[in-house]
Amino acid sequence: MIEATFPHHLVQNAIVSSLQEDLGLAGDITGNAVLKADEIISCSITAREAGTVAGMPLALATFKALDPKIKLAKKMSDGDKVKAGDVVLAIKGNSRATLAAERVALNYLCHLSGVASLTQKFVQQTKGTNAAICCTRKTLPGLRAFQKYAVRAGGGRNHRYGLDQAVLIKDNHIASAGGIKQVLERVKKLASHMVRIEIEVDTLAQLETVMNYKVDAVLLDNMKPAQLEKAVALVDGRAITEASGGINLQTVKKIAQTGVDLISVGALTHSAPIFDFGLDYR
Amino acid sequence: MIEATFPHHLVQNAIVSSLQEDLGLAGDITGNAVLKADEIISCSITAREAGTVAGMPLALATFKALDPKIKLAKKMSDGDKVKAGDVVLAIKGNSRATLAAERVALNYLCHLSGVASLTQKFVQQTKGTNAAICCTRKTLPGLRAFQKYAVRAGGGRNHRYGLDQAVLIKDNHIASAGGIKQVLERVKKLASHMVRIEIEVDTLAQLETVMNYKVDAVLLDNMKPAQLEKAVALVDGRAITEASGGINLQTVKKIAQTGVDLISVGALTHSAPIFDFGLDYR
Amino acid sequence: MIEATFPHHLVQNAIVSSLQEDLGLAGDITGNAVLKADEIISCSITAREAGTVAGMPLALATFKALDPKIKLAKKMSDGDKVKAGDVVLAIKGNSRATLAAERVALNYLCHLSGVASLTQKFVQQTKGTNAAICCTRKTLPGLRAFQKYAVRAGGGRNHRYGLDQAVLIKDNHIASAGGIKQVLERVKKLASHMVRIEIEVDTLAQLETVMNYKVDAVLLDNMKPAQLEKAVALVDGRAITEASGGINLQTVKKIAQTGVDLISVGALTHSAPIFDFGLDYR
Amino acid sequence: MIEATFPHHLVQNAIVSSLQEDLGLAGDITGNAVLKADEIISCSITAREAGTVAGMPLALATFKALDPKIKLAKKMSDGDKVKAGDVVLAIKGNSRATLAAERVALNYLCHLSGVASLTQKFVQQTKGTNAAICCTRKTLPGLRAFQKYAVRAGGGRNHRYGLDQAVLIKDNHIASAGGIKQVLERVKKLASHMVRIEIEVDTLAQLETVMNYKVDAVLLDNMKPAQLEKAVALVDGRAITEASGGINLQTVKKIAQTGVDLISVGALTHSAPIFDFGLDYR
Amino acid sequence: MIEATFPHHLVQNAIVSSLQEDLGLAGDITGNAVLKADEIISCSITAREAGTVAGMPLALATFKALDPKIKLAKKMSDGDKVKAGDVVLAIKGNSRATLAAERVALNYLCHLSGVASLTQKFVQQTKGTNAAICCTRKTLPGLRAFQKYAVRAGGGRNHRYGLDQAVLIKDNHIASAGGIKQVLERVKKLASHMVRIEIEVDTLAQLETVMNYKVDAVLLDNMKPAQLEKAVALVDGRAITEASGGINLQTVKKIAQTGVDLISVGALTHSAPIFDFGLDYR
Amino acid sequence: MIEATFPHHLVQNAIVSSLQEDLGLAGDITGNAVLKADEIISCSITAREAGTVAGMPLALATFKALDPKIKLAKKMSDGDKVKAGDVVLAIKGNSRATLAAERVALNYLCHLSGVASLTQKFVQQTKGTNAAICCTRKTLPGLRAFQKYAVRAGGGRNHRYGLDQAVLIKDNHIASAGGIKQVLERVKKLASHMVRIEIEVDTLAQLETVMNYKVDAVLLDNMKPAQLEKAVALVDGRAITEASGGINLQTVKKIAQTGVDLISVGALTHSAPIFDFGLDYR
Repeated sequence: MIEATFPHHLVQNAIVSSLQEDLGLAGDITGNAVLKADEIISCSITAREAGTVAGMPLALATFKALDPKIKLAKKMSDGDKVKAGDVVLAIKGNSRATLAAERVALNYLCHLSGVASLTQKFVQQTKGTNAAICCTRKTLPGLRAFQKYAVRAGGGRNHRYGLDQAVLIKDNHIASAGGIKQVLERVKKLASHMVRIEIEVDTLAQLETVMNYKVDAVLLDNMKPAQLEKAVALVDGRAITEASGGINLQTVKKIAQTGVDLISVGALTHSAPIFDFGLDYR
Repeated sequence: MIEATFPHHLVQNAIVSSLQEDLGLAGDITGNAVLKADEIISCSITAREAGTVAGMPLALATFKALDPKIKLAKKMSDGDKVKAGDVVLAIKGNSRATLAAERVALNYLCHLSGVASLTQKFVQQTKGTNAAICCTRKTLPGLRAFQKYAVRAGGGRNHRYGLDQAVLIKDNHIASAGGIKQVLERVKKLASHMVRIEIEVDTLAQLETVMNYKVDAVLLDNMKPAQLEKAVALVDGRAITEASGGINLQTVKKIAQTGVDLISVGALTHSAPIFDFGLDYR
Repeated sequence: MIEATFPHHLVQNAIVSSLQEDLGLAGDITGNAVLKADEIISCSITAREAGTVAGMPLALATFKALDPKIKLAKKMSDGDKVKAGDVVLAIKGNSRATLAAERVALNYLCHLSGVASLTQKFVQQTKGTNAAICCTRKTLPGLRAFQKYAVRAGGGRNHRYGLDQAVLIKDNHIASAGGIKQVLERVKKLASHMVRIEIEVDTLAQLETVMNYKVDAVLLDNMKPAQLEKAVALVDGRAITEASGGINLQTVKKIAQTGVDLISVGALTHSAPIFDFGLDYR
Repeated sequence: MIEATFPHHLVQNAIVSSLQEDLGLAGDITGNAVLKADEIISCSITAREAGTVAGMPLALATFKALDPKIKLAKKMSDGDKVKAGDVVLAIKGNSRATLAAERVALNYLCHLSGVASLTQKFVQQTKGTNAAICCTRKTLPGLRAFQKYAVRAGGGRNHRYGLDQAVLIKDNHIASAGGIKQVLERVKKLASHMVRIEIEVDTLAQLETVMNYKVDAVLLDNMKPAQLEKAVALVDGRAITEASGGINLQTVKKIAQTGVDLISVGALTHSAPIFDFGLDYR
Repeated sequence: MIEATFPHHLVQNAIVSSLQEDLGLAGDITGNAVLKADEIISCSITAREAGTVAGMPLALATFKALDPKIKLAKKMSDGDKVKAGDVVLAIKGNSRATLAAERVALNYLCHLSGVASLTQKFVQQTKGTNAAICCTRKTLPGLRAFQKYAVRAGGGRNHRYGLDQAVLIKDNHIASAGGIKQVLERVKKLASHMVRIEIEVDTLAQLETVMNYKVDAVLLDNMKPAQLEKAVALVDGRAITEASGGINLQTVKKIAQTGVDLISVGALTHSAPIFDFGLDYR
Repeated sequence: MIEATFPHHLVQNAIVSSLQEDLGLAGDITGNAVLKADEIISCSITAREAGTVAGMPLALATFKALDPKIKLAKKMSDGDKVKAGDVVLAIKGNSRATLAAERVALNYLCHLSGVASLTQKFVQQTKGTNAAICCTRKTLPGLRAFQKYAVRAGGGRNHRYGLDQAVLIKDNHIASAGGIKQVLERVKKLASHMVRIEIEVDTLAQLETVMNYKVDAVLLDNMKPAQLEKAVALVDGRAITEASGGINLQTVKKIAQTGVDLISVGALTHSAPIFDFGLDYR
């Protein structure tokens, strides 16, 4: 179902750029010299470990781009859980095109499945709590739309996509505006009514001041579990509560048990190791 | 010195795309609503851990793109080693522009320094040996030129940039051509004399056959240290020897001690965690 | 102050495209044939009617693009009110470059000032009420970022920039999901916590149902003033109220007096006549 | 028949840009959250008023871009006259794709049909005369090719597409060259023989001087009907006569009756209100 | 003076593309490995033969793109005649940037000067006649704007830039329309009044028919000098006469002496050998 | 077989750009005015002389781009030898689309077949020798990928595609590094092991020094046949030998007979006259 939310309108430009990055002007000089021109091969993309798939539409589009007649039998969809040995895609097509597309297709699939699988690990840790896992703007340049989608494929939720999608007020903003009251008045006056307003606080005292005003969400930065519990109690449902700051797979469960609504984790998109897929001849 | 080899001709397009990715059509709606329009701020980018810097030209260009009058005092260059607390860049500029550029600049700098720092860790493990660490084509789509540069900044060397830069013959190529002899004849006939030829082998037997012919390099795939030693002896300086396949920080030293010339590590570019930099007001 | 929120990161690509649209491959064949190559002219852009300025950064960038040494003395800023005869920009530069840039610069300036001036007329009608005027997604393809900015320059506010910035639920969405309860549950589960949720209603009965749930805003579609008053009373501050549907300069005052928070007007961006500026030699 | 002259070679890039403008990185977050993933809907685009259609190829391409399997039954073609209630396009396709494409498709269709319909109104006023209605370079940035086509769909004719297509000499050109004789000599010497030469005159005296030389067309700027009649008599078929300057639906008939060949109207492209189309479920 | 008509608005995109074509992702790997990072060199671009210069703005922009601080002393301008040994550009800049830009700069300069020099040779042959030399649409893909400019730099004139700039009616058009009368009626009705109309004829009989109607120019295809003389007499100043079809440096003089106005030569842009420039250290 | 190595991933962008270059905003104004909208024509592309074909994939893609339903019957493939009168492509499609695409398709086909045919002439001269003909980086901006492919279609081989593909050390590099020993040490240390290293020498003395070190290839610049023979003897198979410098069809045979491995000829790509193809109605 997640795959239906894939940003398909961005695929063609992404694929063309990535293929040019790998093929340059000369193309696959190995395949061009060595492979028979009209050889048809059968191969499949197989998981080498357990995790969550993301990026299938990019993989498919990459192979199609170099061989419009290629036969692609999709065995898994984004969001599906796989184990080592599971085939996600069976391929029958021209050998030159298939091998020329292989690396680009796998680079997308392995990276995005890495993001989804890491997200899923965090999500697992929050089971039984109310907390959702979400991403940040700490993404890899050029890959944000696909990474944010992979977070969803892994069971996570999206924080704002960019500076244009929501207001997030930090210390420096408050200082420049002259105080919490002033900053919120300015936002109310100048920002669109269609964007949410979140404000970052470091202490419970700050949070208390903030809660005198109406905000959509509070970002509780670098708070310990005990503090977070108090913060959640203080907010008392009047705003979405988001915990943030260096949260990892070891600490996330404790954070989730404090009752916060959201836990944002930069590592989902800035430090996810790849998920290992390989292409094997059959 | 490494910074002089930065691919400057790719910076402008990269920066414009990345800024549009984060700013969308509406721009920084928080800063636009909240910050004073003509406020000048002083801040700096500081390392939060120890490692190797890469990506300074991109960080500088990002800030300049949004505030052409910004003052940027570079304290460190790519390839430099930093420890937690070291300032790499001091900034004095318009607050809206600076904060709107912050995330894009940091996303480049943190990711590329992550690549450089991981590379450097591998390089440290090979000290006292003849082996160099090098990257692969397992890069993140759209970032290859910068990632490959970051590998150099971390003390590594570059394998081929793309399918267009060198010939690398694998099992499937040999099968399609009809054997090692045939594959090398085809390459010699059809590939440019200006590209190197490497061939992948899985066993010493294969290697022996290969060494009957002239190749520039042999890729010794997934061999154990003992096998690698024999392979190096067998090659005996007639070709560059490259070890490859799942090598990590725990195993790299043993591999390096086998006498191979090169050790290629996909993780440098596909799974490097970020290096943590932050922007602090002064 | 509005000009500080201009989307500067989009200017260069816009200008280059627009100049290529007007200059083609051959350039200004009249100027090239007829004007002296090194002639310096002085001219100014003058308002031919009364209204509100928008688009100065685009006009300036257009002239600079064709003559980097041109002298541009800005007399007015976006958001300023002008009357017929007011000079907004004094220009001294190469005659070929100036006349080649003239039409593109004026096309931007006249259109965006048209949008700002029309917005300002609507805003004038709402004086003394609580209602703000805002735009829609009914923009001219390729010009949305600049048009939405021009609405702000005219004293209006922005509705969502695109389908990606906020949730707006309409009849068809409710039908597909199976009812208001179901649609809001799905949104809460699947949409980011950082986006606002608005829902469109046509009748007071629908509104009553909707108000059983938590939404950020209600779009009151095609309601008469009497209905709107009742709707505002019914909502009673629990959500932002937005009136929409064929509202024009004749009807907007009555609508504003009903107490709604926002009045959205598609015509601001889809049907604004230009504001008349001319370039005169001095 | 007009539709066969549509600039099809520009459609793909236009559509991709416009969809990215509306969908951003995140896509249609409402539809993605709320609509069933595989729902097929039937709907149609219907005229809400009477006028002339333009932009069908863009509307069709937009829907196809998001759902390649969509069924589109075209009921009207560009240049056709429609009345309120007429269906121009029947659609059967995936609900998410259809609704995500709706606004972009309508923004093109409504704007271009607005241009065509306004043009047609002017054309109606010239019935029984020899005068044709034509457009100017006062177009909206990025939309020129489509707007000029829409003018043709409305029964108008095109003036030059850009500075590169024809020579149009104005006062400043004459002054810089040193006189009418000099300016025409320079043009004859330097401009291509394949471009037409038009010259602007403000008075009959100027026109008399101009007619001593060979030009293709004369632009009679801001002349009253009585003056225009004299001008037409003076030219006596030796050049195309074009009336220009603030001509509107009230004045155009009188202008047309003076015998001029062409009447150029900037408002066709810079100030056309949209033509109202809506998308309705069936 | 010709250089003032250079299409400057197309330079930046051209340069960026060409540099990426030569530098790829890795850049100048020779210079990066071998040259000192901060070395300043002095060199110059020198003519190795006699001819006419074209393309200086592209050469200058290429060097500037890689070294913004480079010092460029222009010694010659486009349209200037040079002899072997003449310096056209003196350069002082960073050695890596200068040598990385060298080939792209020279590829533009040598090709465009080749076009200009060949044009000039044809122009020389027409001295004492009324005939001008002009180019065709037989250009090299991607280079038309610059090639057409180079033709002007060599003393030639431009035929239409593209299918969009003027009407040129050929046999197939006449057949499809049903005859010369019909084709010209359709053009008059449907084409803009701002474009010229030329018609191609193969025989004097055809020409006679054509001259019953009003056209701007006649293309006399593949006619012998004797035929051309008769054609010119037949036209008698009522249209521009253009000779075309396999005309070369041996035949052009005879053609020019027939009294035709224009001689179009496809070879100027499709087959011009380069003009030899070299970059020498000083 | 050569056609299977065509850089297909670059075709779409190339075609779109080239069509926009010829069609501008207005399209084919002649065809639009004159041709029947739904006329189907049959025509073919025929060789007007003898030579070698290159560029068929671009020609086909150009026609398809403007008429997706066009029927294209390929009679010849790239690399095939043709004589005057041979049909290479039979076409049946919409007349407007076919004639609008004709010039772009022919411009690619004629230029690239020109490159292939000239290459083939050089190759013929080397028959019976060991020498291969290869191209240089002296290509026409924007066309390198296609030109280098055309060289292969003509029987030649490719030198490096760009500065990024291989190391080529020249005098200035040696001077900057401080000598041949130093330059090669730097290259070995800093350049990737996957790139070849070639060094240019002007004299036999230089060559002798160079041969003390290990290089992949030596470029013997501007040497006479007698010198080349000595150079080949001196190298004695330890490196690839390449002759370069002003070699033409008159001199190439003598050069080839010296025993050099490669002869590089800039003229293949910078000065190839077109091969003459025409489109004829059937």
